[in-house]
Amino acid sequence: MTPIMTRSDAAELVVAARVRRGLSWHEIAEQIGAAPVWTTAALLGQHPLSAEQAGRVCELLGLDGTVAESLQRQPSRGADPARMADPTIYRFAEALAVYGPALKELIHEEFGDGIMSAINFRVDVSRRPDPDGDRVVVTFDGKFLDYKW
Amino acid sequence: MTPIMTRSDAAELVVAARVRRGLSWHEIAEQIGAAPVWTTAALLGQHPLSAEQAGRVCELLGLDGTVAESLQRQPSRGADPARMADPTIYRFAEALAVYGPALKELIHEEFGDGIMSAINFRVDVSRRPDPDGDRVVVTFDGKFLDYKW
Amino acid sequence: MTPIMTRSDAAELVVAARVRRGLSWHEIAEQIGAAPVWTTAALLGQHPLSAEQAGRVCELLGLDGTVAESLQRQPSRGADPARMADPTIYRFAEALAVYGPALKELIHEEFGDGIMSAINFRVDVSRRPDPDGDRVVVTFDGKFLDYKW
Amino acid sequence: MTPIMTRSDAAELVVAARVRRGLSWHEIAEQIGAAPVWTTAALLGQHPLSAEQAGRVCELLGLDGTVAESLQRQPSRGADPARMADPTIYRFAEALAVYGPALKELIHEEFGDGIMSAINFRVDVSRRPDPDGDRVVVTFDGKFLDYKW
Amino acid sequence: MTPIMTRSDAAELVVAARVRRGLSWHEIAEQIGAAPVWTTAALLGQHPLSAEQAGRVCELLGLDGTVAESLQRQPSRGADPARMADPTIYRFAEALAVYGPALKELIHEEFGDGIMSAINFRVDVSRRPDPDGDRVVVTFDGKFLDYKW
Amino acid sequence: MTPIMTRSDAAELVVAARVRRGLSWHEIAEQIGAAPVWTTAALLGQHPLSAEQAGRVCELLGLDGTVAESLQRQPSRGADPARMADPTIYRFAEALAVYGPALKELIHEEFGDGIMSAINFRVDVSRRPDPDGDRVVVTFDGKFLDYKW
Amino acid sequence: MTPIMTRSDAAELVVAARVRRGLSWHEIAEQIGAAPVWTTAALLGQHPLSAEQAGRVCELLGLDGTVAESLQRQPSRGADPARMADPTIYRFAEALAVYGPALKELIHEEFGDGIMSAINFRVDVSRRPDPDGDRVVVTFDGKFLDYKW
Amino acid sequence: MTPIMTRSDAAELVVAARVRRGLSWHEIAEQIGAAPVWTTAALLGQHPLSAEQAGRVCELLGLDGTVAESLQRQPSRGADPARMADPTIYRFAEALAVYGPALKELIHEEFGDGIMSAINFRVDVSRRPDPDGDRVVVTFDGKFLDYKW
Amino acid sequence: MTPIMTRSDAAELVVAARVRRGLSWHEIAEQIGAAPVWTTAALLGQHPLSAEQAGRVCELLGLDGTVAESLQRQPSRGADPARMADPTIYRFAEALAVYGPALKELIHEEFGDGIMSAINFRVDVSRRPDPDGDRVVVTFDGKFLDYKW
Amino acid sequence: MTPIMTRSDAAELVVAARVRRGLSWHEIAEQIGAAPVWTTAALLGQHPLSAEQAGRVCELLGLDGTVAESLQRQPSRGADPARMADPTIYRFAEALAVYGPALKELIHEEFGDGIMSAINFRVDVSRRPDPDGDRVVVTFDGKFLDYKW
Repeated sequence: MTPIMTRSDAAELVVAARVRRGLSWHEIAEQIGAAPVWTTAALLGQHPLSAEQAGRVCELLGLDGTVAESLQRQPSRGADPARMADPTIYRFAEALAVYGPALKELIHEEFGDGIMSAINFRVDVSRRPDPDGDRVVVTFDGKFLDYKW
Repeated sequence: MTPIMTRSDAAELVVAARVRRGLSWHEIAEQIGAAPVWTTAALLGQHPLSAEQAGRVCELLGLDGTVAESLQRQPSRGADPARMADPTIYRFAEALAVYGPALKELIHEEFGDGIMSAINFRVDVSRRPDPDGDRVVVTFDGKFLDYKW
Repeated sequence: MTPIMTRSDAAELVVAARVRRGLSWHEIAEQIGAAPVWTTAALLGQHPLSAEQAGRVCELLGLDGTVAESLQRQPSRGADPARMADPTIYRFAEALAVYGPALKELIHEEFGDGIMSAINFRVDVSRRPDPDGDRVVVTFDGKFLDYKW
Repeated sequence: MTPIMTRSDAAELVVAARVRRGLSWHEIAEQIGAAPVWTTAALLGQHPLSAEQAGRVCELLGLDGTVAESLQRQPSRGADPARMADPTIYRFAEALAVYGPALKELIHEEFGDGIMSAINFRVDVSRRPDPDGDRVVVTFDGKFLDYKW
Repeated sequence: MTPIMTRSDAAELVVAARVRRGLSWHEIAEQIGAAPVWTTAALLGQHPLSAEQAGRVCELLGLDGTVAESLQRQPSRGADPARMADPTIYRFAEALAVYGPALKELIHEEFGDGIMSAINFRVDVSRRPDPDGDRVVVTFDGKFLDYKW
Repeated sequence: MTPIMTRSDAAELVVAARVRRGLSWHEIAEQIGAAPVWTTAALLGQHPLSAEQAGRVCELLGLDGTVAESLQRQPSRGADPARMADPTIYRFAEALAVYGPALKELIHEEFGDGIMSAINFRVDVSRRPDPDGDRVVVTFDGKFLDYKW
Repeated sequence: MTPIMTRSDAAELVVAARVRRGLSWHEIAEQIGAAPVWTTAALLGQHPLSAEQAGRVCELLGLDGTVAESLQRQPSRGADPARMADPTIYRFAEALAVYGPALKELIHEEFGDGIMSAINFRVDVSRRPDPDGDRVVVTFDGKFLDYKW
Repeated sequence: MTPIMTRSDAAELVVAARVRRGLSWHEIAEQIGAAPVWTTAALLGQHPLSAEQAGRVCELLGLDGTVAESLQRQPSRGADPARMADPTIYRFAEALAVYGPALKELIHEEFGDGIMSAINFRVDVSRRPDPDGDRVVVTFDGKFLDYKW
Repeated sequence: MTPIMTRSDAAELVVAARVRRGLSWHEIAEQIGAAPVWTTAALLGQHPLSAEQAGRVCELLGLDGTVAESLQRQPSRGADPARMADPTIYRFAEALAVYGPALKELIHEEFGDGIMSAINFRVDVSRRPDPDGDRVVVTFDGKFLDYKW
Repeated sequence: MTPIMTRSDAAELVVAARVRRGLSWHEIAEQIGAAPVWTTAALLGQHPLSAEQAGRVCELLGLDGTVAESLQRQPSRGADPARMADPTIYRFAEALAVYGPALKELIHEEFGDGIMSAINFRVDVSRRPDPDGDRVVVTFDGKFLDYKW
């Protein structure tokens, strides 16, 4: 029986190989023709890659077919709670604790009763220069879905 | 001893009075000259208002001085965990579970080791028309802070 | 300042008045022209009612305007975890623990990578006669949403 | 002493072999003469298979006798909580949080005090075409059991 | 609007009135023609009583119609987790932690794959004299339900 | 240094060997002259066996001395919480949630302030034929211990 | 219906009245002829008092019959988890985390397989003078109970 | 790079070797000139041993230098929560839940505001013969530390 | 029976009265001759005040004797976990998560095996001017206690 | 594919090698020209080291390039919760539970609404001689960040 590699083991190999090869996430994303956040999330184990994408990534990073097979597997999505306490990630959770109920009010005010889809959804991160210190700008962009029986 | 009103009781009164008076959050925000998300979050108990802002809100909503005093009080920030399970808020948490580690990677790639501030920070919500269904666009915009000993 | 009634206090009053008046949930649902599960969930605090629906319910049950106002308020959705341990509800959670990962596999097999919407969604409960004992049949029916960047 | 394979290791091997062989869950179910949800759940570790069923599955997937033995073992049922946060599974949990108490009310209204069995129970998933987007239809079908001392 | 009494408030009143009137749980059970464990559990808020039973109990204990109405209400079953740590109750939980997996093995050995119903179920407690100290004997007696698709 | 086998690894080996040898728990219990529930619990890791018992079990099941040594080791008692959610075990926990406070009341009524020992204790499981379906009967039998300073 | 006082409300009244009257716990214990730790624990809600003890305490502290009735009620034992984090109490929990497994080993070495009873049990606290600073000496003294089927 | 042994692996080896060599914890304690509870706790991973103590223990038990090195390492103290549910250890936790708040009151009454140190601290366990059954006597003895700014 | 005020109700009254009277925590601390952090913590419910201190505070803030009595009561120390998520407090917890294990290593390196006392302890907060933005400087200062049997 | 070493495995190797080589954390810190707390935290897995720093550390401790590569990797920050219960670390958490809300009040009083940064931040630990026993002095020093939209 051929060995099986979990998505999280594949992710660790990708992370290490990326550093060793000196490739940025943006370069990998460009090579597979996908958005940077999508590509990074997918390689960290949150989305299945197509056979072509998985093959291209493994070629770029010098990883073998076991990794490529793993990257195509349908994952169980979601993050390890321990990782959510990392300060760089935690600030998003804190912002959500402070502003989440306000976002809910304003979504209902603008759109009516419903939600922002997290499935028909994209997220981008960019740098905005600012004389007082450059800023991280993260945009969540999801289709509005109204409660509809 | 004059009675004391908690920030959460004040928030409930504001929410109910806003509906009764038929005022939108945007209208209230405009009246106190602050951003809509900031204003809504503040009135829900996440930021202290200035005496002038608190007075103006209570005048608009027909609420008395006990409420105005409460709205100026320094709050203990953060949301009731039960509220985070509301579907409209939960989708943000889910997006963070799926894309949080990718955001961390890309922030480090672009800015180096550090975080997006959740204090020197603003968040906006808007509607983007789309033929396949309008979209909720939420922008998190925080100053980058690098780990600096 | 007019008194405010929480959605959960309104729900308790509705539950008690329904029994006292000898009305079934189905009868109330019929009176407001909505599905039984939707109506029951809404009156228990999970959906806002229209002014007309809220007024009709309060008229039927002999409840006053404070209740009617409360029923129209946008709720924070989700159930008290303690209630989820009630045996009648717990059996659904148990079925989900046993069959949830299988449902995920079969949804992906049939539809590709995505989810069943819980927003564009309806649920019905019915009785199916069976010589070995009648059966509870609960149908979850939600629009398929594919992961779409 | 012959090696022992846990049910979860067997499940991982089945999942990988199924993809490699290009077999669908429906095809495997048909081969062992069982319902698709039952078969998938059983192979993921929730039900014991008969010797014949286990043998047939291993033959189809090219797995050896250690796997076949494992598949016949009585499992400890229930899902890893981390898996329940996967969005495809979570939507069912969310629907239950929103509609569970209503289902309880309507089961009591129709059947009296009791529960839907999760043991004398079946669940099916199907696709219902819809011009606004096809729908996932999942039916829970369990014998009513009344509280009986 | 008539006042509403929760099941747990009704339970507290029953407990106190029982002591004041000097009645045992067995005497109350006998008066309503039900088993002692069932009666006690029902009065503590775990089962609805019939109108006749509720009326008889309130007559015995000198409690009014609000209590009687409450006792007939369909409860949300299950115990406050804090109560489960009381030593008299905890010993049952400890016994279950030590012997639960063994009970599962032996139920499967004797009956096949299935469970002891907790719905078609009764439990009795009695004293068994023993020269080394009398013994508490608690019998759980539930219908076997086999996993049946 | 001789290898060490944990009690849980020994338990897994016993469970697998028992099935391979086609021996029932009752047969093993008879061979070591102990009660079935005690024997099963002990082999699953909840009690130390005597050297003689451990030797006899390993002889019956074809297991080596490392297993025999492990079975004699004083265990840390208690079950993996994940196992308690298995439906066959969970029904006991549910019965305890529903009837535990009633059992406490009736123990105090019959015996005074104290507990049923879970140490000077035995538990038996048996089948009681019933025309409406045979029943699982589980008897908890523990010495009463009164609170005694 | 006469008002009911919970055990925890009674405890708060006792604590406040004790300070106001300038009585020590030792003096109260002496007055009811019981050990200081038992008396204090009982008045804080962990043991029922006899009618005579409850009457004597209320007389000493100037509390009325509602308190006396409450103190005789059978309590649900156990402490609020929040209280266990108080530093004076936490040090005992920390000592147990550090030395608990060692105590288990030494109890088994000295007595065989079994436990120290927490029911047939007493605990005393005293001061031991020491030139390097006086010491708190707490003695747990419980009957050994051996695992006995 | 020389292999590293964790403190918990070293503890498991010590426990097994002690049984194989037929040595009691008291004998080991005597050999290294330390108190039995301290010695047992230290070998289970709660205190660092001196080089001489570690060497003597490994000599007695026939363990090699990797174990000796591990035993001298500064540990991260505290117990696995799963172990705290073992009945022999749990009884101490239960006693603390029942009597902890009373101990706090009596420490404050005798010593003023402060705590019993768990650092300048010793604990002993002994057997006290009793005609009604011998007793486990555990003495916690820690320096009083007063809150001192 | 005189009414009782909990420490947390007293704290809320102090916080509100302080703002109304326009007094700073430093001014109150000076008036009672205690350090600012100690005074603030004590008034928020973490330390008992002397009768003289409590009286002086209530005089300054216009609060009555019920508050003064409450402030002298021995509190159960520790913070509401919900408050620990407030961003101003959370940053300390985050720093502890990142640097706590390093602090442990360096305390052991400098002092040997032991702890910094949190009882014989003081903490100060001050502002340090800095051209890049002033800094919050918080000093934890506790007596070293070595593990001493 | 070259092997990958996790940050936590690297940390364990560093800790063991440091002891074997007889080097203090201060000596290592001096060798890489960084502060002792920063260096210790970084080597325990909380900060990435520069290539030069990682190389120097591995040279000093006789560790190979796999360790050096691991030390340069961007970590996921935060501590294992089990480690936070170690008494040496726990005292800081306890101090935070007791004084955290007071620190928040005083930061707001001195600086206005905002936080002490945990990113633009340093922490130092030192010994302060004291005739009553030397003291551990830990200074948290972070830039003040005001809430700024």
